[in-house]
Amino acid sequence: MARRKHSHRKHRLLGNNTAEAIVAVEGATSPSATIHKICYNDQDILSQQLTLKEITDWQAPPAHVAWINVHGVLDIALLQAVARRFKLHPLVLDDILNTEQRPKLDIYPDYLFLETRLFYYDSESMSVSSEQISMALGREWLLTFQERPSGSFEPVRERLRQGQLLIRQSGPDYLCYALLDSLMERYFQVLEAINEDAERLENHLLNHPSPEDLQNIHRLKHVTIQLRRAVWPLREVLNSLIRNEHGFFSAQTLPYLRDLYDHTVHFTESLEAIRDTLSGLMDIYMTSLSQRVNLEVRALTVVAMLFMPATLIAGIFGMNFNEMPWLKDPQGFWWAILMMLGIAVAMLLVFWRRQWLSSRREA
Amino acid sequence: MARRKHSHRKHRLLGNNTAEAIVAVEGATSPSATIHKICYNDQDILSQQLTLKEITDWQAPPAHVAWINVHGVLDIALLQAVARRFKLHPLVLDDILNTEQRPKLDIYPDYLFLETRLFYYDSESMSVSSEQISMALGREWLLTFQERPSGSFEPVRERLRQGQLLIRQSGPDYLCYALLDSLMERYFQVLEAINEDAERLENHLLNHPSPEDLQNIHRLKHVTIQLRRAVWPLREVLNSLIRNEHGFFSAQTLPYLRDLYDHTVHFTESLEAIRDTLSGLMDIYMTSLSQRVNLEVRALTVVAMLFMPATLIAGIFGMNFNEMPWLKDPQGFWWAILMMLGIAVAMLLVFWRRQWLSSRREA
Amino acid sequence: MARRKHSHRKHRLLGNNTAEAIVAVEGATSPSATIHKICYNDQDILSQQLTLKEITDWQAPPAHVAWINVHGVLDIALLQAVARRFKLHPLVLDDILNTEQRPKLDIYPDYLFLETRLFYYDSESMSVSSEQISMALGREWLLTFQERPSGSFEPVRERLRQGQLLIRQSGPDYLCYALLDSLMERYFQVLEAINEDAERLENHLLNHPSPEDLQNIHRLKHVTIQLRRAVWPLREVLNSLIRNEHGFFSAQTLPYLRDLYDHTVHFTESLEAIRDTLSGLMDIYMTSLSQRVNLEVRALTVVAMLFMPATLIAGIFGMNFNEMPWLKDPQGFWWAILMMLGIAVAMLLVFWRRQWLSSRREA
Amino acid sequence: MARRKHSHRKHRLLGNNTAEAIVAVEGATSPSATIHKICYNDQDILSQQLTLKEITDWQAPPAHVAWINVHGVLDIALLQAVARRFKLHPLVLDDILNTEQRPKLDIYPDYLFLETRLFYYDSESMSVSSEQISMALGREWLLTFQERPSGSFEPVRERLRQGQLLIRQSGPDYLCYALLDSLMERYFQVLEAINEDAERLENHLLNHPSPEDLQNIHRLKHVTIQLRRAVWPLREVLNSLIRNEHGFFSAQTLPYLRDLYDHTVHFTESLEAIRDTLSGLMDIYMTSLSQRVNLEVRALTVVAMLFMPATLIAGIFGMNFNEMPWLKDPQGFWWAILMMLGIAVAMLLVFWRRQWLSSRREA
Amino acid sequence: MARRKHSHRKHRLLGNNTAEAIVAVEGATSPSATIHKICYNDQDILSQQLTLKEITDWQAPPAHVAWINVHGVLDIALLQAVARRFKLHPLVLDDILNTEQRPKLDIYPDYLFLETRLFYYDSESMSVSSEQISMALGREWLLTFQERPSGSFEPVRERLRQGQLLIRQSGPDYLCYALLDSLMERYFQVLEAINEDAERLENHLLNHPSPEDLQNIHRLKHVTIQLRRAVWPLREVLNSLIRNEHGFFSAQTLPYLRDLYDHTVHFTESLEAIRDTLSGLMDIYMTSLSQRVNLEVRALTVVAMLFMPATLIAGIFGMNFNEMPWLKDPQGFWWAILMMLGIAVAMLLVFWRRQWLSSRREA
Ligand SMILES: [Mg+2]
Ligand SMILES: [Mg+2]
Ligand SMILES: [Mg+2]
Ligand SMILES: [Mg+2]
Ligand SMILES: [Mg+2]
Ligand SMILES: [Mg+2]
Ligand SMILES: [Mg+2]
Ligand SMILES: [Mg+2]
Ligand SMILES: [Mg+2]
Ligand SMILES: [Mg+2]
Ligand SMILES: [Mg+2]
Ligand SMILES: [Mg+2]
Ligand SMILES: [Mg+2]
Ligand SMILES: [Mg+2]
Ligand SMILES: [Mg+2]
Ligand SMILES: [Mg+2]
Ligand SMILES: [Mg+2]
Ligand SMILES: [Mg+2]
Ligand SMILES: [Mg+2]
Ligand SMILES: [Mg+2]
Ligand SMILES: [Mg+2]
Ligand SMILES: [Mg+2]
Ligand SMILES: [Mg+2]
Ligand SMILES: [Mg+2]
Ligand SMILES: [Mg+2]
Ligand SMILES: [Mg+2]
Ligand SMILES: [Mg+2]
Ligand SMILES: [Mg+2]
Ligand SMILES: [Mg+2]
Ligand SMILES: [Mg+2]
Ligand SMILES: [Mg+2]
Repeated sequence: MARRKHSHRKHRLLGNNTAEAIVAVEGATSPSATIHKICYNDQDILSQQLTLKEITDWQAPPAHVAWINVHGVLDIALLQAVARRFKLHPLVLDDILNTEQRPKLDIYPDYLFLETRLFYYDSESMSVSSEQISMALGREWLLTFQERPSGSFEPVRERLRQGQLLIRQSGPDYLCYALLDSLMERYFQVLEAINEDAERLENHLLNHPSPEDLQNIHRLKHVTIQLRRAVWPLREVLNSLIRNEHGFFSAQTLPYLRDLYDHTVHFTESLEAIRDTLSGLMDIYMTSLSQRVNLEVRALTVVAMLFMPATLIAGIFGMNFNEMPWLKDPQGFWWAILMMLGIAVAMLLVFWRRQWLSSRREA
Repeated sequence: MARRKHSHRKHRLLGNNTAEAIVAVEGATSPSATIHKICYNDQDILSQQLTLKEITDWQAPPAHVAWINVHGVLDIALLQAVARRFKLHPLVLDDILNTEQRPKLDIYPDYLFLETRLFYYDSESMSVSSEQISMALGREWLLTFQERPSGSFEPVRERLRQGQLLIRQSGPDYLCYALLDSLMERYFQVLEAINEDAERLENHLLNHPSPEDLQNIHRLKHVTIQLRRAVWPLREVLNSLIRNEHGFFSAQTLPYLRDLYDHTVHFTESLEAIRDTLSGLMDIYMTSLSQRVNLEVRALTVVAMLFMPATLIAGIFGMNFNEMPWLKDPQGFWWAILMMLGIAVAMLLVFWRRQWLSSRREA
Repeated sequence: MARRKHSHRKHRLLGNNTAEAIVAVEGATSPSATIHKICYNDQDILSQQLTLKEITDWQAPPAHVAWINVHGVLDIALLQAVARRFKLHPLVLDDILNTEQRPKLDIYPDYLFLETRLFYYDSESMSVSSEQISMALGREWLLTFQERPSGSFEPVRERLRQGQLLIRQSGPDYLCYALLDSLMERYFQVLEAINEDAERLENHLLNHPSPEDLQNIHRLKHVTIQLRRAVWPLREVLNSLIRNEHGFFSAQTLPYLRDLYDHTVHFTESLEAIRDTLSGLMDIYMTSLSQRVNLEVRALTVVAMLFMPATLIAGIFGMNFNEMPWLKDPQGFWWAILMMLGIAVAMLLVFWRRQWLSSRREA
Repeated sequence: MARRKHSHRKHRLLGNNTAEAIVAVEGATSPSATIHKICYNDQDILSQQLTLKEITDWQAPPAHVAWINVHGVLDIALLQAVARRFKLHPLVLDDILNTEQRPKLDIYPDYLFLETRLFYYDSESMSVSSEQISMALGREWLLTFQERPSGSFEPVRERLRQGQLLIRQSGPDYLCYALLDSLMERYFQVLEAINEDAERLENHLLNHPSPEDLQNIHRLKHVTIQLRRAVWPLREVLNSLIRNEHGFFSAQTLPYLRDLYDHTVHFTESLEAIRDTLSGLMDIYMTSLSQRVNLEVRALTVVAMLFMPATLIAGIFGMNFNEMPWLKDPQGFWWAILMMLGIAVAMLLVFWRRQWLSSRREA
Repeated sequence: MARRKHSHRKHRLLGNNTAEAIVAVEGATSPSATIHKICYNDQDILSQQLTLKEITDWQAPPAHVAWINVHGVLDIALLQAVARRFKLHPLVLDDILNTEQRPKLDIYPDYLFLETRLFYYDSESMSVSSEQISMALGREWLLTFQERPSGSFEPVRERLRQGQLLIRQSGPDYLCYALLDSLMERYFQVLEAINEDAERLENHLLNHPSPEDLQNIHRLKHVTIQLRRAVWPLREVLNSLIRNEHGFFSAQTLPYLRDLYDHTVHFTESLEAIRDTLSGLMDIYMTSLSQRVNLEVRALTVVAMLFMPATLIAGIFGMNFNEMPWLKDPQGFWWAILMMLGIAVAMLLVFWRRQWLSSRREA
């Protein structure tokens, strides 16, 4: 649980005050923040870094799509310059800075604002970390904001550079779709990794159930909860985008959004299936563990019983009566020992018949 | 869990790039892909294999319904030819190739695109495998795409060949219904097979509960989850088809669709009933198993107690006091043995009365 | 589970082919099928059996309500004659023959088609069997189809014969209501029988919990599931009827339908209450059973402990030391026995104080 | 469960036949049924008993609100006179007589008909009994029907007599609200009583868990289920009343209805909270009980182990070897005893360290 | 459970009678009630205490926003003066006095009335106490009512005094938002405190599970239930406010309300996550505790078994046969002791191999 952090309030004051006074983010020195711009149409493509000044003065070249990506530790001054240039609402700025938002869509007259999350799964600790990715989609530009360079947008940049016709001929709406799609791709990668871990866990469980397995089941369950919390609102977001009441998406791009929506539905269902599996594993673990201890206690009890008649016989022949059978017989001792063994063997047979010794019921 | 595979991303790249560049499917050599065509109206019927070239040049004979079925390992070139000929959207092609889609309906101006799943139940391993079946329904033609020849469409072909009036006089919409209906037929066959396995399992459970039963319960549960995941979206698809906002279905066919919808509702309810039964079996298993071990441990404890007084008596007469009763009595030893037996029998009576030895409570 | 049968597909082929070819029902020889007709208005009432020929030629007497009831093993030829005469859709015929339908309402231009179920509860086996009752409500006639003569419509026939004004002055819509109401009456009878069985079960459980009780709880639960599956769709059907968009019901009859709807709501709630009770019984059973075994094992353990000090003392005085206290004392033996008894009594006191022997906690 | 009775069908025949023939209620002699009338406006108030004849001839004094309350064992003839006088639908009469209705609202052109329930909680048996209260609200009059005189309407009568302005100046709609409000008041009284019992139960459970507690938890749960079944439909009724499509409520009264609706919402939430608490108590009970038995068995086992080494030592010195250490030593016996004690004490120390003797884990 | 109090009925009589007669609140002497007023626009700001008389005569200065805050123990006379001055409905007054309301929104023509709750979390007892905060939002004024001075509004007062432009230029709607936002801030603080306690609990549980942990889990669960009961209706309230059908909120303030709504959604999801975690902890606790006792009992049984063969051997050599091996051997005794030790060691090895002694499975 230590991994989760409700750092929600980190930038709250800023949010309400953005328009008037900038409160420095706690201990934030942000030297590595960078702004990267790609301008393209089906004819040409231009890619460059932007400085604070350049962003303020920047004019979009006509008939081009402009994609401006901000990443690295957030630099308030830089961010505000971007916000001023593209006339973003103070609340949008607040949401970008507050990196624990749930996915959502805000509709403003001149742009759509989207919050999404990117997940990194660590198979070692069976936990996910996540990063917030914010997008603002205007009529001619797309802004994206990442906490750190993640490489998750690289396939899209590659397609732009390679001059793929569909993306180069389309507007920023298709670019937005392509980025969301590459994000969804990452979700499925995480899902597959979890699925493999769950399978490994199942095998381990069936062969050598251990308390660690219990903890791992809990960890995987926790991961599925986190993913679900990110994907369900994303599904709603896509649903709103598809309705397209705001008109930011062209008719050509809408089928692609619908396809992406299908992916989120598929994703949530696969997630539910993994959750069902994990619940099943939990049941198996509980049953097999308690069953094993029960069987062991029974086995121990059975062994204890084998000694009882023998101990009784020894006691009987240890009694001090003047006249007792066999005592004077030179073979008497061995007859007694034989009797002890005979009874033990007979009991073993009975127990074996009742399957109290067999391992057949060991889960 | 090893059976499930999230091969979702197999053809993703293709999906986005179809219009421009074909990326070869991983290791796919597809010599066995075949295209089969049936053209019919109430007068005549023509059935033939088509080659890549023929499909490209093919013109529908006027006033006929054309049913083109593609099956076998998918041949990208062939598929693209079909897609080009019938003007299918790149995303449709992508969905056909990605064989892990959930059932859905996409509405395009000139055709409806349906994804469905066909299930094969293996009673041996109590697991299902499934195959994707895609359909595109135009105004005058129906395209169907199968992963491999399954024989599930054979009854419909038979009805066409035999010249059944209703199907031969109707358009491709009724053909589409008839194929969906034959698919649903298969679902009920799977359901009955599961039901029989569940009954066998119940009998086994009540007579000889074993850990294998637990695994089998889990397997059947898993199968019901998979079926549910396929049927629920199919139900939604049929619901959309019935609303018929797109007008692809004639008024004559709609009641048949409604009937099919009833079948899916019936199917999901029967599925829920099986799930309830499986949950009940789980409870019975847990109870009977833990109850049985408990009773065995009690039985062992009871037996142990029978020895205690005897062992004590032996100890007492083994003490070394100078004066002890019975020691010098020639029958003393036998009196002691009698006392041991007497107490054991008395205890047995008490236990028998309290039903601690009766098997009445053995579940 | 053996009671449930997914005989869904029994008549499927027939369903699709009705208009063209009749496929004989598996092994169905149907000599006992009968058609019975009652024609009435507020003036007169006529009741008679109909033959196949009569049903074909039959004309409704003007200004009368005609109720035609078909029951007994279904005779395909007869049924088709009825269907032809009243212009029933082939799918309706299919539904009537397929006796595992869930309750539903199909709206056709000239008639409403209703499917309902009638239940028979067998208190001996704590199971229900059920029968399908189909109804077609036209503007001037009502058709009813039963699997076998059930007597459930007798009270309505009685009211007709006795000339009750309300029913004799009303149209077939009120007759349809009256039949549905008599059906609902039967549902409540079943509910009361189940309720009594649940109470008996509860009493048995609190006094003598046995594994049979567990099975009976499961049986009753299963029955409630079956009833719920029949009543929930019936509730929807009534809800549609009340909306009366089709105009088959007169304003006078609608309040009666609403009253009937209230009954179904009441029924489902009572059903839920019984299910809650059954879940509670399950909990009590599990707790009391495991608690009882636990207490027994503890009691046995306590008794075992009473012997330990005595056995130790016997062992001590059985040691072979040259000098040991009391050995030569003529009363030594009795002192030792007294010590054994004394310790056992002291332990009994301690256990009694800790309530380890009291039966107070025996559930 | 014996308390619940599905006496639903008691008056069914009557319901359908009311207009024509009166079937006597089973064994109902109803001498004590009384009709009481209060007529008031802001000027004067008149209160009197009515006979059968008076109710038939009765005319409402102009510009007054008339409240007619029927209570005591129901007298069919009297009730029918009332029904005739106020033109109540036969189904309304049927509902009034059938005292197991769930709360509901029926809208008739000239009056609203409401069913509600009044609860009596018996803290002794932790059970509720309930009574049906029916109301018919006309434009100028309000009819109320109770099973027996309950005193729950007394506060409202008091306000009328004292001449409280709001109620005396308002119409029968406000009177109806006031009666419903006084009913809701009773619900909260029941809730508080349950809550106190739940608290007492919790205290008892944490200190002296006993099987009676389990039964009491079940009883309280059962009561909450009964209350919920009455309040949820009442909530729906109020929701319909607030929409006021029928216009029986004045604009002045509507905010009061909304306030009452708030109370029902609050009530259901408090009920859910009590249910959560009861579930929690169940968990605590199960855990503490099984935990306690487990700890006792462990304690007994620990004590048993203390005897084992001593018994072995006694056995060893009881062996009959010719040469054994200490046998001839006059202190030998005491050394042996000392060894027994020493080992027992050492084991006690180990167990005490491992907290196997501490009561710290006793829940 | 003793903390919760259904004091619902405390002021009921007052509620219905407010307009006519004031019934004194039980034992309420309210000397410390104070009314504080802040009047502001973007030019100036005036802050002062008001007396009963001043509130009656008070006129809002034109073109200013008036915020009137009532806190401390409620003084009925004072409150009525406020209600009269601002024309509040008697039911509003009733709700303000009844401090156990659930959050809600009532829409009156001239003002909106909001109920909200403020929570105080006590980490010591893991419980929350709460206070009701009522607000009435008019076109030019905002009234707030607190049970006692809580300081939760201080940040907003500070922003007003500091002359922050956004709040000083906006109307009472923005002020209302700002206060709700500061309330929400407190909710997140409580959430973080609970989260930290849950983490501490988890650590304790994994290392030293104790029955106290169980109680603490229950306490935290109870707190989350209380928070959920307050936040869910608050979410609905905000949802209604956003729809703004009443027009009390300006277009500038609406995005801020939407942001606040996002916060409540985020809050409820985080709450659900904590609940999931608590359920997981419960599972771990149950498993680890029962597992631990099981393992201890097994360990004790294992130790008991080590003594059995030794005790049997001692018994055997204590038998009184005339001829027994080793008895006359001077080393006989030591051979016997060696045999005892040898068998014990051999058994230890077997147990160690089977991991019956290892602590690996200790959860
Ligand atoms: Mg924020
Ligand atoms: Mg925000
Ligand atoms: Mg989040
Ligand atoms: Mg969630
Ligand atoms: Mg899948
Ligand atoms: Mg699922
Ligand atoms: Mg599974
Ligand atoms: Mg795809
Ligand atoms: Mg797709
Ligand atoms: Mg699927
Ligand atoms: Mg069901
Ligand atoms: Mg069952
Ligand atoms: Mg059918
Ligand atoms: Mg059908
Ligand atoms: Mg069925
Ligand atoms: Mg059914
Ligand atoms: Mg219920
Ligand atoms: Mg109950
Ligand atoms: Mg009735
Ligand atoms: Mg009724
Ligand atoms: Mg009821
Ligand atoms: Mg009730
Ligand atoms: Mg609670
Ligand atoms: Mg609790
Ligand atoms: Mg309240
Ligand atoms: Mg109130
Ligand atoms: Mg109120
Ligand atoms: Mg509350
Ligand atoms: Mg709640
Ligand atoms: Mg969560
Ligand atoms: Mg967790």
